[in-house]
Amino acid sequence: MRQKAHGGNLAWAAALAGCSPSAILDFSASISPLGPPNSAIAAITSQLGNLKHYPDPDYSELRQALGHFHQLPPEWILPGNGSAELLTLSGKEFSRLAATTLITPAFGDYYRSLAAYDVKVLECPKSIVNSDLSMIIDKGQKTLDKGLLLNNPHNPTGKLFSVEEILPYLEQFALVVVDEAFMDFLPPDEEQSLIPLIQEYANLVILRSLTKFYSLPGLRLGYAIANPERLSKWQLWRDPWPVNTLAAAAAIAALDDKEFQSATWEWLPPTRNQLFQGLAKLPGLQPKESAANFLLVESQQSVCQLQEQLLKEYQIYIRDCLSFKELGDRYFRVAVRSKSDNQRLLTALKALLKDKG
Amino acid sequence: MRQKAHGGNLAWAAALAGCSPSAILDFSASISPLGPPNSAIAAITSQLGNLKHYPDPDYSELRQALGHFHQLPPEWILPGNGSAELLTLSGKEFSRLAATTLITPAFGDYYRSLAAYDVKVLECPKSIVNSDLSMIIDKGQKTLDKGLLLNNPHNPTGKLFSVEEILPYLEQFALVVVDEAFMDFLPPDEEQSLIPLIQEYANLVILRSLTKFYSLPGLRLGYAIANPERLSKWQLWRDPWPVNTLAAAAAIAALDDKEFQSATWEWLPPTRNQLFQGLAKLPGLQPKESAANFLLVESQQSVCQLQEQLLKEYQIYIRDCLSFKELGDRYFRVAVRSKSDNQRLLTALKALLKDKG
Repeated sequence: MRQKAHGGNLAWAAALAGCSPSAILDFSASISPLGPPNSAIAAITSQLGNLKHYPDPDYSELRQALGHFHQLPPEWILPGNGSAELLTLSGKEFSRLAATTLITPAFGDYYRSLAAYDVKVLECPKSIVNSDLSMIIDKGQKTLDKGLLLNNPHNPTGKLFSVEEILPYLEQFALVVVDEAFMDFLPPDEEQSLIPLIQEYANLVILRSLTKFYSLPGLRLGYAIANPERLSKWQLWRDPWPVNTLAAAAAIAALDDKEFQSATWEWLPPTRNQLFQGLAKLPGLQPKESAANFLLVESQQSVCQLQEQLLKEYQIYIRDCLSFKELGDRYFRVAVRSKSDNQRLLTALKALLKDKG
Repeated sequence: MRQKAHGGNLAWAAALAGCSPSAILDFSASISPLGPPNSAIAAITSQLGNLKHYPDPDYSELRQALGHFHQLPPEWILPGNGSAELLTLSGKEFSRLAATTLITPAFGDYYRSLAAYDVKVLECPKSIVNSDLSMIIDKGQKTLDKGLLLNNPHNPTGKLFSVEEILPYLEQFALVVVDEAFMDFLPPDEEQSLIPLIQEYANLVILRSLTKFYSLPGLRLGYAIANPERLSKWQLWRDPWPVNTLAAAAAIAALDDKEFQSATWEWLPPTRNQLFQGLAKLPGLQPKESAANFLLVESQQSVCQLQEQLLKEYQIYIRDCLSFKELGDRYFRVAVRSKSDNQRLLTALKALLKDKG
């Protein structure tokens, strides 16, 4: 049994570790350890009596809450069943173009969504791991008939691209889809989101998720931000009620939970730094600087072996990077968790790597 | 403000009635008044702690429960975010054929899902309201390169097609998608489901819903039953986690709730008969025989006017049929509700129609 390409496949990990999924210390899924916020759970509970009604097909209240949050009119926002659903609709949009450029290594579901609509994929020849955007996308390329799909911060490297770095490509590509699933982990004054520019670029689509920041991957809630005409078209490409009543209510409550948001922004930088410093001190491991809630780590030894040992001996699950073909067996990714959880990982890694040394 | 094409747009109705949506007596959405089952709500509550994990991308437990329920191997079943999501995937499948035949009047979302993939639609020239299948689909037609989309029981007429009536078209069409969203309202020994034939026909797809029978339209849960190869392909056409954790848990519990199922099968026939008989006695109204939990009613007077009067004077909401272009302003559809609710509708209609007479 080989694990799935995506992080968070706890069933596989638990079977290997010989314990229940809930006993696993999961560093594989890049989900905040602080959530879900109580406000979101309370909102879900309050809506149980409304399950006998269809959701509002316009999701007016949810769009208003999202619009208020981003200071945009509601018609610029389309909620979806996880940002994964909106990524799939992006695939359909890209299929109208000659080809689509992908920054690599790229999240596995990008390939799936593009393949679903037979999109011709152009992979950047250089990996972004040790390069920057300007080194891997040639500004001189003829790309007016092409699309560009990237995420910011980038997964799995955690790199943050500045607005200025991305801007030239908005002029150069017919369609630019920026997946900002991890952008909300940056405090508002440090974000490099393209949302403030959305009304200037009809060829820009931004995907956001409530999954990671609010620890709600089981609920499925994301949204696209784009020109209202494009979103009206997307609305007809899919069914009328993609977001369930409970997810919509949880989202509205979570967006309004300023206390949870502040706590997350206070927690992340020092905790990520603790994990980074701890990993950097271990022999044969080199973490990469990250703006997100995870770290990509280069390893001199086989990650598959390390992953298996961590599971069997410590019930700790790290994300191998086999699904990123440019990375293979010499990289892993870990979520930033609480300081004590992080310390458990560091202690386990230290013991395993010492055995090797 | 004109209402949406789909039943259950309570916000519009409440505004017209001058009351809160919860004060409306809603006959417009064809949802059972008996649910949701307590078992489903309890299952949702029990899973709130698991929202911080991604759903199992294979939905193994859910597929097993559905397979057990239908006596099919789990790989013949693909859960979706409401059967509406699976209808959309059917649209993509139909787009590979020369054209698709639609029984009319047809549910509005059928047109949307076919248009989303530029499917050429062939509407049967005769309406099914006063005909049967053999009268409207010519068995001599050249249809080996075409698809057929129908629902059984048919919405909005409530007509039940027998397995024998549909069988010839399975031989004749390249792809047959049968939407059985209301089939579970028939007791098991009266169902005319094609599920028992699924393993014999690779060109057959069956769509089922848990929305109507279990009164869970806010939760979004449906499933497709088809050849595993086809379903594996569909799985790659959409995102990996279409069903949220709470919906999956509710479905498993509901399928196991034999008591709720029996209560529904006991409730429906006599209650539908009470409503049918009551409507048939009113001047200018003619209900159609129905196998589902709703009745289509032909009206000699304008239904728009009647709908408005029922809302303003009685806070009762019936479904006009303007979205079914073959029906227009002379038909309405009502869900079967409790005997006392049905009586409230009959009393209100009687008063309004007497005023006219």
